[in-house]
Amino acid sequence: MNAMAAPVIAPHLPEWVEPHYFRSTEELFELAPQAEIGWFDLYQPQGMAEAIRRAGRLRWLNSIYAGVDFFPLPLLAERGVVLTNGAGINAITIAEYVVMGMLTIAKGYREVVRAQDRHEWLLDSPGKVELAGSRALILGAGEIGGRVARMLAGFEVEVTTVRRAPGEGTLTPDQWRARLGEFDWVILAVPATPETDGMIGAAELAAMKRSAVLINVARGTVVDQEALIAALEDKRIGGAFLDVTTPEPLPAEHPLWNLPNAHVTMHLSGRAQDRMFVRAVQRFLANLGRFQRGEPLSHRVDLSRGY
Amino acid sequence: MNAMAAPVIAPHLPEWVEPHYFRSTEELFELAPQAEIGWFDLYQPQGMAEAIRRAGRLRWLNSIYAGVDFFPLPLLAERGVVLTNGAGINAITIAEYVVMGMLTIAKGYREVVRAQDRHEWLLDSPGKVELAGSRALILGAGEIGGRVARMLAGFEVEVTTVRRAPGEGTLTPDQWRARLGEFDWVILAVPATPETDGMIGAAELAAMKRSAVLINVARGTVVDQEALIAALEDKRIGGAFLDVTTPEPLPAEHPLWNLPNAHVTMHLSGRAQDRMFVRAVQRFLANLGRFQRGEPLSHRVDLSRGY
Repeated sequence: MNAMAAPVIAPHLPEWVEPHYFRSTEELFELAPQAEIGWFDLYQPQGMAEAIRRAGRLRWLNSIYAGVDFFPLPLLAERGVVLTNGAGINAITIAEYVVMGMLTIAKGYREVVRAQDRHEWLLDSPGKVELAGSRALILGAGEIGGRVARMLAGFEVEVTTVRRAPGEGTLTPDQWRARLGEFDWVILAVPATPETDGMIGAAELAAMKRSAVLINVARGTVVDQEALIAALEDKRIGGAFLDVTTPEPLPAEHPLWNLPNAHVTMHLSGRAQDRMFVRAVQRFLANLGRFQRGEPLSHRVDLSRGY
Repeated sequence: MNAMAAPVIAPHLPEWVEPHYFRSTEELFELAPQAEIGWFDLYQPQGMAEAIRRAGRLRWLNSIYAGVDFFPLPLLAERGVVLTNGAGINAITIAEYVVMGMLTIAKGYREVVRAQDRHEWLLDSPGKVELAGSRALILGAGEIGGRVARMLAGFEVEVTTVRRAPGEGTLTPDQWRARLGEFDWVILAVPATPETDGMIGAAELAAMKRSAVLINVARGTVVDQEALIAALEDKRIGGAFLDVTTPEPLPAEHPLWNLPNAHVTMHLSGRAQDRMFVRAVQRFLANLGRFQRGEPLSHRVDLSRGY
């Protein structure tokens, strides 16, 4: 485990766990081969993958991250390692961020901020859209999508969710593309998998309403970014609220920064809270109990699906 | 009626109504003395008050505005004129604006906008507050307050409303001051009346949490603005989201523009929609029917209370 976690986690560890903490990537590489249970989270995904390769005795790997696309999933599957992730741990703040994105675009709030900075009293609202009565399509039926749907109900937004199981207010994965033109908001909260890679491309953007807004809190790779930039430049859609981009960070000269209908939020949605770590520790400790009792762990990743 | 309303309203007027339209304040002054039913809305409240004084035959005065504090209410009462207002007509967008204010302050979104303008990829969120689990006090139990309460329920915010009738999740007007220190958000959506004038002053600000945010979508006069500026300068409260100020517009050199914890939105909340006029016309036409049948009009202002 990362040494930063020690003060919070050490007092709660059961006696059968012998903890080892790393202070650097090098220390992680040294400790990894002995670990049966690992929590290897580092800022650099490359280091984590290498540590996993060295961890030959590993039986359970835990992570605070929801997106595990940068883990060597086939290797973990081959070795029979159970992977548990942080899906849902920062879903609250990400869902709140999605609604903030919708509201700020609806009301043209960015222009209001800039006007305050100029000390200019605007006489009319730069945005005149009401969420009430609008229609949203949510791609991704996980914790984030579910929370956004509940929040938007309070705004009288008509919400449609894409999920495998058919039902009221839902579309199946083979239905939503034909219905894209009906929605004012298209919200991407899918996991990053080969299946979702580039799922929004030129054809999907062309099928959207000219006033529709695309909101991406999934991964930059879920969108064909070149096609998106072209659609934004030609105003073929109303705008995009992009918490994620390709690459991250965006270089200073990247065209997305300057497009007036692109709202770049620098992958901050999940960071806009201070409880993620506490929640991750609580989940890890609960899973430690299950691990000892031989019970199935919660939030286990399906290594073949990738989420 | 204002001539701008003619294209929308004329085709729907019943035969017993003989419409007269004004194109200027002068034309309104000329027409007012004959009017039995008046819809005198102008941009300048002073002109409206003068037109009302001249309208000696007036039986019913309609307005698109929710706040009628600039009408000569005692004069209308003396003459027995019924006043109907636009309460609730722009409540949807104002309520949406309130939640936008909470979210943008929680996530430090203003700093994100400024960072995009600088092409700078922030590595951490300037705001780390989740709405979920926070507590809001709503002063004003009208259409706006009710909508905000419903929206915030979807965010798992614990909402307390101030209203005369006691009940679950509510405080009465003599109770809320003693409980101010419990809330993360204090939301002002009261009508502007002598009773609400300066209802938030130095004592109330001092009783709030140091992290609490004051949101004002009522009238600038509801807050003692000098006391608020002092509290913001000393960081005795977390911040203020001010759709309304004293005066409006704020002069360019006013200190509120520059305070880093003051969010000035220029009385735009009600303007951030394009359906207000259509809704006002629908309400006026429905009231015309009631007027002819001798039934009570909807959204009639209590001239002694002022809302």
